[in-house]
Amino acid sequence: MKVGIIGASGYGGLELVRLLHTHPEVESVELFTSSEEGTVYSHKYTHLYNIMDQPLRRINAEEMSSLDVVFSSAPAGVASTLLPPLIGKGPRIIDLSGDFRLKDEELYRNWYQKDPAPGKYLQESVYGLTEWNRSAIEKATLIANPGCYPTAVLLSLLPLLRDQLIDGSQLIIDAKSGVSGAGNTPSQMTHFSETNENISIYKVNKHQHIPEIEQGFQLFAKEQSPITFSTHLVPMTRGIIATSYARLEDGVSQEKLIECLTETYNESPFVRIIPASQKFGTKQVSGSNYCDIQVYADSRTNRVTVVSVIDNLVKGAAGQAIQNMNVQFGLKETTGLTQVPAFI
Amino acid sequence: MKVGIIGASGYGGLELVRLLHTHPEVESVELFTSSEEGTVYSHKYTHLYNIMDQPLRRINAEEMSSLDVVFSSAPAGVASTLLPPLIGKGPRIIDLSGDFRLKDEELYRNWYQKDPAPGKYLQESVYGLTEWNRSAIEKATLIANPGCYPTAVLLSLLPLLRDQLIDGSQLIIDAKSGVSGAGNTPSQMTHFSETNENISIYKVNKHQHIPEIEQGFQLFAKEQSPITFSTHLVPMTRGIIATSYARLEDGVSQEKLIECLTETYNESPFVRIIPASQKFGTKQVSGSNYCDIQVYADSRTNRVTVVSVIDNLVKGAAGQAIQNMNVQFGLKETTGLTQVPAFI
Amino acid sequence: MKVGIIGASGYGGLELVRLLHTHPEVESVELFTSSEEGTVYSHKYTHLYNIMDQPLRRINAEEMSSLDVVFSSAPAGVASTLLPPLIGKGPRIIDLSGDFRLKDEELYRNWYQKDPAPGKYLQESVYGLTEWNRSAIEKATLIANPGCYPTAVLLSLLPLLRDQLIDGSQLIIDAKSGVSGAGNTPSQMTHFSETNENISIYKVNKHQHIPEIEQGFQLFAKEQSPITFSTHLVPMTRGIIATSYARLEDGVSQEKLIECLTETYNESPFVRIIPASQKFGTKQVSGSNYCDIQVYADSRTNRVTVVSVIDNLVKGAAGQAIQNMNVQFGLKETTGLTQVPAFI
Amino acid sequence: MKVGIIGASGYGGLELVRLLHTHPEVESVELFTSSEEGTVYSHKYTHLYNIMDQPLRRINAEEMSSLDVVFSSAPAGVASTLLPPLIGKGPRIIDLSGDFRLKDEELYRNWYQKDPAPGKYLQESVYGLTEWNRSAIEKATLIANPGCYPTAVLLSLLPLLRDQLIDGSQLIIDAKSGVSGAGNTPSQMTHFSETNENISIYKVNKHQHIPEIEQGFQLFAKEQSPITFSTHLVPMTRGIIATSYARLEDGVSQEKLIECLTETYNESPFVRIIPASQKFGTKQVSGSNYCDIQVYADSRTNRVTVVSVIDNLVKGAAGQAIQNMNVQFGLKETTGLTQVPAFI
Repeated sequence: MKVGIIGASGYGGLELVRLLHTHPEVESVELFTSSEEGTVYSHKYTHLYNIMDQPLRRINAEEMSSLDVVFSSAPAGVASTLLPPLIGKGPRIIDLSGDFRLKDEELYRNWYQKDPAPGKYLQESVYGLTEWNRSAIEKATLIANPGCYPTAVLLSLLPLLRDQLIDGSQLIIDAKSGVSGAGNTPSQMTHFSETNENISIYKVNKHQHIPEIEQGFQLFAKEQSPITFSTHLVPMTRGIIATSYARLEDGVSQEKLIECLTETYNESPFVRIIPASQKFGTKQVSGSNYCDIQVYADSRTNRVTVVSVIDNLVKGAAGQAIQNMNVQFGLKETTGLTQVPAFI
Repeated sequence: MKVGIIGASGYGGLELVRLLHTHPEVESVELFTSSEEGTVYSHKYTHLYNIMDQPLRRINAEEMSSLDVVFSSAPAGVASTLLPPLIGKGPRIIDLSGDFRLKDEELYRNWYQKDPAPGKYLQESVYGLTEWNRSAIEKATLIANPGCYPTAVLLSLLPLLRDQLIDGSQLIIDAKSGVSGAGNTPSQMTHFSETNENISIYKVNKHQHIPEIEQGFQLFAKEQSPITFSTHLVPMTRGIIATSYARLEDGVSQEKLIECLTETYNESPFVRIIPASQKFGTKQVSGSNYCDIQVYADSRTNRVTVVSVIDNLVKGAAGQAIQNMNVQFGLKETTGLTQVPAFI
Repeated sequence: MKVGIIGASGYGGLELVRLLHTHPEVESVELFTSSEEGTVYSHKYTHLYNIMDQPLRRINAEEMSSLDVVFSSAPAGVASTLLPPLIGKGPRIIDLSGDFRLKDEELYRNWYQKDPAPGKYLQESVYGLTEWNRSAIEKATLIANPGCYPTAVLLSLLPLLRDQLIDGSQLIIDAKSGVSGAGNTPSQMTHFSETNENISIYKVNKHQHIPEIEQGFQLFAKEQSPITFSTHLVPMTRGIIATSYARLEDGVSQEKLIECLTETYNESPFVRIIPASQKFGTKQVSGSNYCDIQVYADSRTNRVTVVSVIDNLVKGAAGQAIQNMNVQFGLKETTGLTQVPAFI
Repeated sequence: MKVGIIGASGYGGLELVRLLHTHPEVESVELFTSSEEGTVYSHKYTHLYNIMDQPLRRINAEEMSSLDVVFSSAPAGVASTLLPPLIGKGPRIIDLSGDFRLKDEELYRNWYQKDPAPGKYLQESVYGLTEWNRSAIEKATLIANPGCYPTAVLLSLLPLLRDQLIDGSQLIIDAKSGVSGAGNTPSQMTHFSETNENISIYKVNKHQHIPEIEQGFQLFAKEQSPITFSTHLVPMTRGIIATSYARLEDGVSQEKLIECLTETYNESPFVRIIPASQKFGTKQVSGSNYCDIQVYADSRTNRVTVVSVIDNLVKGAAGQAIQNMNVQFGLKETTGLTQVPAFI
């Protein structure tokens, strides 16, 4: 397979490069840019010395038409204009931005404070939450790869909501992310001296992943209620932990919850249901495509705490994108994604 | 004032030493131990070289009787047996462990899995949440200094519960702490290579601070409902952030919440109400005795997110203990506690 | 005393604010700026809420003339033009930049790649390495406060060079610093995701502190040889460790080295000579004005390893500046600088 | 190939598991222990859930005889007694401890303060510095895999010493390591709250890697002089940077140094010579088997600064061990070791 990456300078692009380099079915990886044409990639990122020494090429629909698949990690608001000229011209498109995820243009406008992509493409795009949308993904021309937070939240809560084991009308989701989620552009928020030794809360009730999660609940579990969702910045590079709280429906036990999750993900190699007795943290999935889930039913309060962890750059971005590519091209879902988590 | 510290080898003790050294009314600080008699303190902790070079002394009620106040940072289960012989023998006692906080012996037994302190002392002890208990603290012989999490949670939620602005029956509290809260004994949970770059969840529905918070809600706000409370370990040394979620009572606005908090803490120099437009993280209180609070009412969900940050070793332990000492001895509450937060 | 700070938005300025706030002889602190007039300081830095809520004022020689002392933490290349109008107009000036440190204009031009300050001021300024220059500091109108690296290096090596216990012609100095030394302007070099979990080397043979250290060796120890000096960026916020290597002169023992250091700093409360048997790291001085020194003579190689640690923002910047102010105004050198290191 | 690992609970063992899992020529990995028989590996290390769920087996020469290769990451002092019964019984042995590295028993006794392995095995063992010892490694029954620091130091200095471009009699080597080098046993030195935000120096002039480096210099470059070598603990998990200083021999230029290194490693895919203009830090090799080298000749001092970085757990341990296995079994040296560094 011949692969192209748009926006390779960002962290999503970097992670695609890392993972695709050892993907056994990928024959070549070309890097494309709208603004840094000619830059030698390994001069910008020394760790790729001897690995990716080619210059970045200008985006060009014609030249890219012979590629099998193009990943885009251009930022939101940019992907919506960069990608349409490429759609339907040959390669499958997998977009890592938020531009093609929300079906409702007004929602996008309100939460992103930008102009939405043309409605035609919003309807055509397929939401790439692999474990829940495989058959649509197989045929998709344009995949809207899910956001990092939505991936962690949806995978852990959807089975319980669909089976009506928890009360969807009172969902509280408290999420925490490593700093790489903020991308590679320096800012005060990502300045080491102010971020290190500091956990902070940000974008309370304003995060653009709120409508994406709610849309996912509607789409896959018919749950319509608004959620409360908070995000925290943690002094570490990679990883997301999402801690969700819900009222248990009558008579639902810990065993019932585990059974629901286990059965749902029986055929999904990247979702692991971890017993409540085990330690549970983001590092257990670091560098890998796993999403680990743990649940704790509490009879004292009749509530459940559902916890999930992912590597935001892998299962929350580049890894899931490659997983979707595997599905599209009829490969085994784990192809090129068998990295063991680097716990240390 | 002559001050003694029991358990000076632990982090609570170390922080007392740090803060008392520059307290203008403290004349001397003596260090006591039950197990390391004779150890020169600065040989164990090089940072105290030339500052605290005395050997640790054996705990002895008679010799300690001339002290004005004794702080104990002996661990839970130990304080309950070490301290009774000293109570009423002269010095005021301020205990940083959990042993004298819960009035109900059975609650202690269930949550701590240890034998409780004698009931007589449990009844006699005064819960040292300074801002809410000043008059009792003034006269107290034995102060049970609050836990780190309960301090952050109670200070931020009590005003809103007492004034019935939020629904106490559905409280969800998601707390995150730096690693120093786990003390100075090495373990796998505090081993650098496994804790760094890792946010993890622990003691779900089992944390001994749950009954302490619930007792505080009952005592100061007449709220009886059980809470859901989770704790996470964050890869940083100091700091706690507690993110709490509640249903807003009818017609309660952001302004109303701010007004309630501002009025409650009008005379409390260590509690700052921070506008929702400001950045908010643990580092803004690092090394200081402040508890900062921020609220976000959300009309979309009719819920409120209440966030508070403290330095777990200062306002969550040694600082609040000294604040209580100041109250007991008729000093200005801020005496010796005017450290500016070390944001960088 | 009435104090002014120029460049309070930077980290040197922030640290001056932190330390001066609890200095018992400082009556007021005014903040001055050349570019952010009117900005409320605590809106920029939330941790100063209720502590420093005044707006920044425009630099104005006349209005500043009633101040006793003005600290400047304007950057190199800026201080040289901002400060001359203030010199001799009333307040003592203590400059934290490198602009008045090097006596030789050509050296400045070569190493800083900027225009030097007027020669008149270069000659007039006094190098504020407190422990080695007290009598000149007392009378100085303009103090060039030493750089962070030179402070750590000079304090540890000067005694041994002056007493000819080590061979100055073969000095190798390997220094490592926390990221706060790079200031508060975001850049790729200080971007959390690329700095965290990464120790890197930078400015090899090009660091502007090289001529400053060599000038210090000439000035205080008559040593003329060029040094080899490297700097590394360590994933932590505060702290410098300087590890220096030298050939031992004939017959010099560990005891002799310790004796030389101990006697040199006998009357210097901020320099601690730590026995070789003790643990030794930057955190033992964190937040304090200490410079700790350790030496290891090695008979196998006939070389010595000299190690020193400081908090780069305190002894390496704001703390030493205040120490110099204390000397200038006849105060006890430790006034306002008695903070105990925050080891945890 | 069938592979066994002894001491899989340690970090060397964990990293072998991580890397061997995706090695295309490895058919099975069995885990052996002397003390934790029956423990299910993934219960101890949650990140291996669904990946390595087998129980640890007791070490048994007979049962292990059908394996092709056995890696041991048992600690020094243990490997010397555990391994001899297995040597020559079938599998090739690759030992990651220091027990078979030093040819001189007295050196081992002095630096390790333990009893050496039987002399017979010390003579038989082959030092596994792959790039310098390939032909001996191919035939070796017992490989002594190099230490982490010696790998970084030897690879960067050997070419320059062998070609007499630098003066070997005055070598100063200042090394810095992440905390994972200290293994998985909790201690005060690896306790998060004391290690975080702290760079410290340790084992000055006493590190057991000193004689190993000196032996390597003798063996591969005929250099006999003692070195000065210091080690620092850096608040990060993985990575080593070794900064070495030497006098340049007459007339040696930067170009000459680069040429020597480039030619030496022309056929060595894991050693990259990085231009002096590029950023250089440990993270550029994180998770990979690369050793990156940079040199800076300084005409002002006539000295050179040579810097190298490795991932201490990969090229400094498990990765180099697998590289040696590849050489032994006639595989391409990069087989299973093509991981791209995880710069973020």
